[in-house]
Amino acid sequence: MTPTVKVSLDEVRNLSYRILIQSGYNREHSEAIADMLYTCQLDDCQSHGLYRLLSCQSTMQAGKINGAAKPKVSSDESAIVKVDAQDGMSLLAFNSGLPLLVEKSKKYGLAAMAINHCFHFSALWPEVEKLSAQGLVGLSMVPSHAWVAPAGGKRGALGTNPIAFSWPRPGRPPFTFDFATSAFARGEIELYQRAQKPLPEHVAINAAGQPTTDPDEALEGAMLTFGGHKGSALAIMIELMAGPLINDLTSLGSLDFSDQIPGVAPYHGQIVLAFDPARFGYDPEDTDNDAAEHLFNEIVDQGARLPSQRRFAARATNFARGYVEIPQALYEDLKSLEG
Amino acid sequence: MTPTVKVSLDEVRNLSYRILIQSGYNREHSEAIADMLYTCQLDDCQSHGLYRLLSCQSTMQAGKINGAAKPKVSSDESAIVKVDAQDGMSLLAFNSGLPLLVEKSKKYGLAAMAINHCFHFSALWPEVEKLSAQGLVGLSMVPSHAWVAPAGGKRGALGTNPIAFSWPRPGRPPFTFDFATSAFARGEIELYQRAQKPLPEHVAINAAGQPTTDPDEALEGAMLTFGGHKGSALAIMIELMAGPLINDLTSLGSLDFSDQIPGVAPYHGQIVLAFDPARFGYDPEDTDNDAAEHLFNEIVDQGARLPSQRRFAARATNFARGYVEIPQALYEDLKSLEG
Repeated sequence: MTPTVKVSLDEVRNLSYRILIQSGYNREHSEAIADMLYTCQLDDCQSHGLYRLLSCQSTMQAGKINGAAKPKVSSDESAIVKVDAQDGMSLLAFNSGLPLLVEKSKKYGLAAMAINHCFHFSALWPEVEKLSAQGLVGLSMVPSHAWVAPAGGKRGALGTNPIAFSWPRPGRPPFTFDFATSAFARGEIELYQRAQKPLPEHVAINAAGQPTTDPDEALEGAMLTFGGHKGSALAIMIELMAGPLINDLTSLGSLDFSDQIPGVAPYHGQIVLAFDPARFGYDPEDTDNDAAEHLFNEIVDQGARLPSQRRFAARATNFARGYVEIPQALYEDLKSLEG
Repeated sequence: MTPTVKVSLDEVRNLSYRILIQSGYNREHSEAIADMLYTCQLDDCQSHGLYRLLSCQSTMQAGKINGAAKPKVSSDESAIVKVDAQDGMSLLAFNSGLPLLVEKSKKYGLAAMAINHCFHFSALWPEVEKLSAQGLVGLSMVPSHAWVAPAGGKRGALGTNPIAFSWPRPGRPPFTFDFATSAFARGEIELYQRAQKPLPEHVAINAAGQPTTDPDEALEGAMLTFGGHKGSALAIMIELMAGPLINDLTSLGSLDFSDQIPGVAPYHGQIVLAFDPARFGYDPEDTDNDAAEHLFNEIVDQGARLPSQRRFAARATNFARGYVEIPQALYEDLKSLEG
């Protein structure tokens, strides 16, 4: 067992905020980032919670991010919202464009938000859940760094390229998933490296293109996609939709831009799609005749789990007891960041 | 080696048309279906080419499909096109709504077509390639019958739920994929059954929920998704987007509706999304500075294959020689259908 430390919910937010301000993010960015870290940590998502403060700091130290960037929202009569993050962290840009994305999706039935020129480190599910909380269906994709080999390939060309989806369920937690199209998330491999544990098979290849279970070798070589050629195809779709389509970098471009400095957040774009079920003819309040709820019941009744079910349970537990548990080593690293 | 028969390209189309007309489809439907079968067979896609004539006939014999249905296209000021297939086969409905989908995606930047009340048997890539042929990005999803167990489950609750995507590449074949989110397509398992070959591992479970490699047992039990819990999550998303969102049946509903008669095409809806790269800021003609082409080159240069590469090669070969090869047993079945 990794030794852990209890951190109160207030302290999760306050510690994050203090470290971010001290790292050079302004108040608006620090609040947006701290809110994301709090949301993830509350759900026991160790890889995208407080752990990411380390990356937020090293990204700032690398000198390319603008900690005081003011996102610029623009639009026309189309169903597209564009947000130029102006080289800041993505989260404030997302929050800035969200109201117009919601408005347009209700007007047109579906709408897209293209965030450009952002640094990106965060989980996507808190963002798509902001859409489902408003009764909309949310779908989001981002590239990352080109650490992942395509099916049949020998070196990184694709990002870990997560895709997240959230479906509103009035009166209960939404149906949400958020997964990397790599077999493992990069953050997971880093946690294996920190814990000095071997990786499972079929997760990575080394610099020579051969299979490996060594996290150090994997980080020098390339990761593999989940699901063979199908996962690889999906990862390429995510590159195209969240990169060239919105006129922003692919994971290859992001890695070039970063000068490959370790721990620096990738720099690229993000696409967020929102669908208004009411405009498509679906009535989520009609629970007597709800094919979606019928499907969820059928899945749970046969002993399978809905994605995010464990996360929602952790949220309830942590919220009720008022604290989260994080690895002691991480807590010490964060305290030393505070200086 | 399965013995094969050469069928000229003209005969692929004509044989299909004759069998469809004789089965009870009207001229418009027979043309739309024959066109789809031709396109698939030309690309050596045995599971979705002429083989599907058997299913088109048994679907008609089951008595629920309307072989003369006139699709009704409707829309409002939103970015949504609705097409009521009126209990006909999906393909004519798709063709009927396509011009308005193209128009709306150019107007709004993105648009959706929701096809309702259709019988559906076909591959999706010929449809998304109709979008990429016009410079748009196409994405489509459909449920099917609830033959696929969710991750951790014991019985069918999800369809084979294909997802297809096509990205325009001016002057060359598009980047296209079309894959079932089940580990195998249903049609593939049927081909294993016809050939009396055992399935690979991790493709199916039997009626007791245990792993099996027997195609007969698999068809009585349930199939598994590709990619474990990630593939399962994606399959659920497809249910929601192409089912409840557009107010149509899930794969569970489709299977109920079919009375489980073997060989009958599933009955449900289909969602098609179209994105106009020009409205998002991407210029596909700017080939000197094309991040998408750079990515494709990087994939191919390391010895990996783009999805559909084999299909495009088959198309070129078959087109040049003027014929396709199909299994002799299938050819005999089709000739006997002609009576």
